[in-house]
Amino acid sequence: CQFSLFSWKGSRKPDVDSSDSWMSEPITSLDELKQNGDDMKCKMEAMIMRIQSEFVHAVEKEELEEGGKKFLVDRWLREQGGGGITCVLQDGTVFEKAGVNISVVSGILPPNAVQQMRARGKKMKGANLKFFAAGVSSVVHPRNPHIPTVHFNYRYFEVENDDGEKHWWFGGGTDLTPYYLEEKDVVHFHKTLKKACDGHGKQLYPKYKKWCDDYFRVPHRGESRGVGGIFFDDVDEPSQDKCFEFVTDCAESVVPSYLPLVQKHKKDGVSYPEREWQLLRRGRYVEFNLIYDRGTKFGLYTPGARYESILMSLPLTARWEYKHSPPEGSREAQLTEVLKNPREWV
Amino acid sequence: CQFSLFSWKGSRKPDVDSSDSWMSEPITSLDELKQNGDDMKCKMEAMIMRIQSEFVHAVEKEELEEGGKKFLVDRWLREQGGGGITCVLQDGTVFEKAGVNISVVSGILPPNAVQQMRARGKKMKGANLKFFAAGVSSVVHPRNPHIPTVHFNYRYFEVENDDGEKHWWFGGGTDLTPYYLEEKDVVHFHKTLKKACDGHGKQLYPKYKKWCDDYFRVPHRGESRGVGGIFFDDVDEPSQDKCFEFVTDCAESVVPSYLPLVQKHKKDGVSYPEREWQLLRRGRYVEFNLIYDRGTKFGLYTPGARYESILMSLPLTARWEYKHSPPEGSREAQLTEVLKNPREWV
Repeated sequence: CQFSLFSWKGSRKPDVDSSDSWMSEPITSLDELKQNGDDMKCKMEAMIMRIQSEFVHAVEKEELEEGGKKFLVDRWLREQGGGGITCVLQDGTVFEKAGVNISVVSGILPPNAVQQMRARGKKMKGANLKFFAAGVSSVVHPRNPHIPTVHFNYRYFEVENDDGEKHWWFGGGTDLTPYYLEEKDVVHFHKTLKKACDGHGKQLYPKYKKWCDDYFRVPHRGESRGVGGIFFDDVDEPSQDKCFEFVTDCAESVVPSYLPLVQKHKKDGVSYPEREWQLLRRGRYVEFNLIYDRGTKFGLYTPGARYESILMSLPLTARWEYKHSPPEGSREAQLTEVLKNPREWV
Repeated sequence: CQFSLFSWKGSRKPDVDSSDSWMSEPITSLDELKQNGDDMKCKMEAMIMRIQSEFVHAVEKEELEEGGKKFLVDRWLREQGGGGITCVLQDGTVFEKAGVNISVVSGILPPNAVQQMRARGKKMKGANLKFFAAGVSSVVHPRNPHIPTVHFNYRYFEVENDDGEKHWWFGGGTDLTPYYLEEKDVVHFHKTLKKACDGHGKQLYPKYKKWCDDYFRVPHRGESRGVGGIFFDDVDEPSQDKCFEFVTDCAESVVPSYLPLVQKHKKDGVSYPEREWQLLRRGRYVEFNLIYDRGTKFGLYTPGARYESILMSLPLTARWEYKHSPPEGSREAQLTEVLKNPREWV
């Protein structure tokens, strides 16, 4: 594996130093990001700009090696404050659809969003709260069914009460959705995420691995969306800086956890039934995202939401067959078994 | 047009008389349906059995004329009471996916379902209510993009309070989702539905046409799912029998409103971009059904729901492209314009 995790440990440079390689100018001006290097809002924006660039370039390298396409870069501003940078690679050679999005938004939270947050354990007073949110999110749907789909999202929130009291927290996660089960690949993926977590407490990986299994469950089918990974929300301990370091380590573990799987399988032969199975599984992916995913629903229900960036997570193509059931003992049935009964991988 | 609406008027036979042509034995025994011909639960079951058979046979005739497939018939029973008959034609010559489902279920309503009903204006006391529901629902996705997708659903509910007080009501509708706008086709479709409504009051079509436009709206895209039709719920006046007659007339208008469109376009030539556009529009169809459709969400959230019958409405294939926008002045843009600004067709 060409990627070595934690190689920079102890010598991490400020994220703004990488600004030359960012996908576009940031949402906040570079000068402001540099001048406010101690403000978490600016630190987070610089970090997600760097992560976006690193991930886009790693994915694009695999695509261009096969003579494929480059990412389109779409910088957008929001009338109500803030904006985002959406990078999309569509209908490529290695990747059918890959989206890497950052957004940095602020404004007033509508009452139903406040409600949503309260339900998640945050106690906040007032009907309309000032908020700030910055995050990076990505979904990569490769063309080859032997390469899994990956999804990650790392985010930071600030909310201010009517009486000026401030709350902040981090959330995020990375998870894998294979079409065929390659145990070694899944173990590599989970091990890499565990390594990122372990530096911040041995209890984190088991807790966030379980949270991921619970979150990406599709109740009506009694199966998970994929083979999991890590998922967390409401992280605000032991300190803002420690939380930021943790989230940064998680975000940096995406490339070493996933890219080796792309490299390993991108030239695998594919049969017609394998492609059909992939499309059916993509239908299941759409079901989870549109019916259950809190982020998607919350996003779409917010007036003025940029739905193109939210729905970027959907595959280019998906398929639904009535009562499709893979033959007993097939590799397709083997995957289904693991989705019904999540395993421990490390 | 080979179909003539209302030709039987004044001489309507009991629906059980058509039992020889039903797709399978009913959920309730035929003897029981015959003996309880005055009970609306039995009348409704016999009616939807007949409608299912008539619609399946009309669709299948178009398919078989082109050497295609027959419907599969899947009768299922529900542990908690009742069951259904799901008829599916998949990957055919004329039809990519067509599902015609009846269900007759009874049991105890879970509290969140009670809540859902209360929100719709029905005042019912008690946490767990005895209920009965019978309905026919169908979605037809033709292969040719010049034939629209059609959806219809007609249903009857009974709910009993803790103190024995009974409520009943009917709901339903038929609506059309074209990929290319053929004004004549849309006018024919709406005119046929209007004719079915008009016999029961001139105010009904305008009211239910508007309700349909409002219901099938996709807020995040600012467009409608299709060109509408009729939609109604909570219908319980002037009498149970009059309501049943109205719903029966609506259900019988599906074949004459839609099948002429299939006949007219099933041999139309199709270009590759037309097929691509159809798949993109099918993605939008999936968005509506999974994010907003009350019936789908309510169904999937109900424990023990038969998700295969609920998700039968999804197309065989769908597609999502980032920021797809049809060229100005194209036929695709013309459709989009009508979806953004619903029109009066009659």
